[in-house]
Amino acid sequence: MSDAFQDAYPDELSVCYGCGRLNEKGLHIKSYWDGERTVCRFRPDPAHTAIAGFVYGGVIASAIDCHGTGSAAAAAKRARAGQSGVEQNPRFVTASLHVDYLKPTPIDVEMVLLGTIVEVKGRKVVVDIEVTCSGVVCVKGRVVAVELPKDWKP
Amino acid sequence: MSDAFQDAYPDELSVCYGCGRLNEKGLHIKSYWDGERTVCRFRPDPAHTAIAGFVYGGVIASAIDCHGTGSAAAAAKRARAGQSGVEQNPRFVTASLHVDYLKPTPIDVEMVLLGTIVEVKGRKVVVDIEVTCSGVVCVKGRVVAVELPKDWKP
Repeated sequence: MSDAFQDAYPDELSVCYGCGRLNEKGLHIKSYWDGERTVCRFRPDPAHTAIAGFVYGGVIASAIDCHGTGSAAAAAKRARAGQSGVEQNPRFVTASLHVDYLKPTPIDVEMVLLGTIVEVKGRKVVVDIEVTCSGVVCVKGRVVAVELPKDWKP
Repeated sequence: MSDAFQDAYPDELSVCYGCGRLNEKGLHIKSYWDGERTVCRFRPDPAHTAIAGFVYGGVIASAIDCHGTGSAAAAAKRARAGQSGVEQNPRFVTASLHVDYLKPTPIDVEMVLLGTIVEVKGRKVVVDIEVTCSGVVCVKGRVVAVELPKDWKP
């Protein structure tokens, strides 16, 4: 399998609790292309419960968040391929996150997040995400992501 | 200090990763009245980082989520006081969550979440939440919460 989008992040931007490969305690969200869409498969920890048997909404929001920013980076990279004067390995952060919880999400099966790139415009990318479990759509989300300036410092 | 809203949840509904007092690995979000508003003070774990020095958006969304549902339960309880034929200790779950990340949220200080009850209508409560750090509003969120039926079973 090819590298995850998040594996292309530089070390100093790889400490995210959601998706950083260098965050030992983190969730290690990983995203990939699946044709024109993006996919993330995620199995929550048994502690990530809301009510017994179901996934906590904050963990679902976290998976949507990092799958969204990863998908945004991949979409921008693809759109910029071959262009000069633009960052070829951009890192996006979340400007806004919206999540609609349609059904309780079972904790004992894999969550599959499918991302659709809605808009790529300059430093902004919008990604819609459906979360399915065993083929049933349980949650829908939207991430508005903006590119982190290359020289950004705290 | 009086009990947190979440301390009134029955045991079987107290396993939430975000706010359940019986979830040993969880975040233990706690919410209280502060006049007409609700307040939650939360100190993230050092691992809850996004980029070094700043809080991960998924953890902020989690705090907003559980402070929102806790505030919804408290607001409904207050609105129903003295009424007969209605549940006096309701438990709410999240129907939708919206988060606007306005500024990077520093990880080395306490986050203060202030909730405003926007609407209490039957089984639905809407709560707006501002997240401040050292007096600066870093994040704004909205939770639409719906009451879990008393006889709800998976």
